[in-house]
Amino acid sequence: MHKEILEDIGEKELINRIGIFMPKNQVSDDCALIKTKNKNLLVNTDSLVENVHFNDITICPQDLGWKAVVSNISDLLSSGSKKTIGITISLVLPARTEWIWVEELYKGINKALKKYGGMILGGDCSKGNEKIISITAFGIQGELELRRNACKPGDKILTTGIHGLSKLGFLIQNKINFDNEFSLKERLISKSIEHFCRPKVYPNFLNNLLQTRSNKKIRRIGCTDSSDGLFQALQDLSIASNCKAIINYEKIPKDKDWPIGDKWDEYYFFGGEDYELVFSLPSKWAQNLSKLDKNIKEIGFFADGEPSIEIKDTKKNKLLNHTPFKHF
Amino acid sequence: MHKEILEDIGEKELINRIGIFMPKNQVSDDCALIKTKNKNLLVNTDSLVENVHFNDITICPQDLGWKAVVSNISDLLSSGSKKTIGITISLVLPARTEWIWVEELYKGINKALKKYGGMILGGDCSKGNEKIISITAFGIQGELELRRNACKPGDKILTTGIHGLSKLGFLIQNKINFDNEFSLKERLISKSIEHFCRPKVYPNFLNNLLQTRSNKKIRRIGCTDSSDGLFQALQDLSIASNCKAIINYEKIPKDKDWPIGDKWDEYYFFGGEDYELVFSLPSKWAQNLSKLDKNIKEIGFFADGEPSIEIKDTKKNKLLNHTPFKHF
Repeated sequence: MHKEILEDIGEKELINRIGIFMPKNQVSDDCALIKTKNKNLLVNTDSLVENVHFNDITICPQDLGWKAVVSNISDLLSSGSKKTIGITISLVLPARTEWIWVEELYKGINKALKKYGGMILGGDCSKGNEKIISITAFGIQGELELRRNACKPGDKILTTGIHGLSKLGFLIQNKINFDNEFSLKERLISKSIEHFCRPKVYPNFLNNLLQTRSNKKIRRIGCTDSSDGLFQALQDLSIASNCKAIINYEKIPKDKDWPIGDKWDEYYFFGGEDYELVFSLPSKWAQNLSKLDKNIKEIGFFADGEPSIEIKDTKKNKLLNHTPFKHF
Repeated sequence: MHKEILEDIGEKELINRIGIFMPKNQVSDDCALIKTKNKNLLVNTDSLVENVHFNDITICPQDLGWKAVVSNISDLLSSGSKKTIGITISLVLPARTEWIWVEELYKGINKALKKYGGMILGGDCSKGNEKIISITAFGIQGELELRRNACKPGDKILTTGIHGLSKLGFLIQNKINFDNEFSLKERLISKSIEHFCRPKVYPNFLNNLLQTRSNKKIRRIGCTDSSDGLFQALQDLSIASNCKAIINYEKIPKDKDWPIGDKWDEYYFFGGEDYELVFSLPSKWAQNLSKLDKNIKEIGFFADGEPSIEIKDTKKNKLLNHTPFKHF
């Protein structure tokens, strides 16, 4: 069967078809309108580039659409967004792209928006040599300002979940041989692929924070997400807040079937695309929150000192000499 | 001399360097914050793709930065933005891109923001095979809503200026032979290159509209910009407003040195990237505005009827059979 490609469809018809996936009131104008009603807006932009962030082998278009939305919502949540308003989508696609690919991408986009809230506000589409999905997401700033530069010496360092799974999923999807001298559990394999292809975020995080706040005067807490890896998240917090992160290796939450070894520590700390939140709280608040949400784990604390990361288990400190997640 | 390329610089250092071009309070966080103070926001996204919208021969990086901003502000103005708040910038760049190119791009971006208002709110940068500049711009909705679907039968059709110059500039920059059986005036050549490389927009347009409004009850008027050509603008207004555009060919404003001929009519109607506003007003308002701003010209009117475009001079109607500006 001849598959319909964008070159056959033409630009105008393509824009009309994409319009099907958008709310009626947002179609056909030069701009999108956001009614803000005296709320401050959070804005985030993220691009996924073919052969840099994804390829046709590792991820299907529906999963890619989901992931493009989730990676943006993760940034909104890590700044304290209480509601996602919506997104604009800027697509660059080769003329040979099949229409079904675009349709599947939008299915994934709309599934993620249905799950986490928000609607498509607008966008544009251009021809190019490689596929690029660039999303700008809008959220409403909630009562707590979550910022990279708000960590304080004495604060506990916490994370919403397990790292490294997305990296493992990526390696499995790429059929890369990862020193597999033992066999991985089937459960870990499918969980890792799920984490890589359909990452989840924590829309209740802000509410749980507010519910467990020990001191109502605190309006700002240190936070970022681990989209570029746990190490990078800790480094970003440490530099922006000008203090030292001390990590208790024994406390980092690992999947029960996660293998032991340097390679696996590397995947854990430098893997990226896990979209877990990494944040800091005063001790009492940290305790309350960990009781309310059992997935949240304390992994260390911030101390006075030059921006840096130290692992308490000195044998593990050599880990920090590795190069972090990079694209260039 | 060895030119510094992005591959040598690395991702983190690149992000630090780009930070120099941004306001201090916006650097280093997951999201940008927009304080909206009970104003409705207009949002627009536009991407410029290498070898589709630009190449290194036709436009220098500083002009490209200017143009990327201006094309977005044009969309904001054509929706009735009274102030540009700022932009987010998503860059995709090949690893072999020279740093000086990025620096020049941001110089152009900041020159346009200095001229038309707004600041850089955030963005990201990824590796890719071709250069892509994707900008999302934010403006504040003014008192008048300018929308594609607000044209009414009986309204006059007006434009803020001359079309076709940008297309001519593009052809000259590409050294394309455009049936040049006669020599173009030097003045027209440099004016066309200026229109292509450094297009201008009309930030006073909304104020002039408000100042000349004949009936204070009218809060919505039909408007779009001619970024995809005059024909496309008229078609978009006509379809969105469900009425017929009747154009008086004799009234369309042309440069005094613009040659006569079918080819030149084509460039005029289908050229694109002129960023003039094309809009509709009740007769009295149209008269008042044309008196206040001598660049604004009435070029026709809307009538009851199926969405379509008709040129009064029947000899010119064959023009409308041409294919509009397209990228796919």
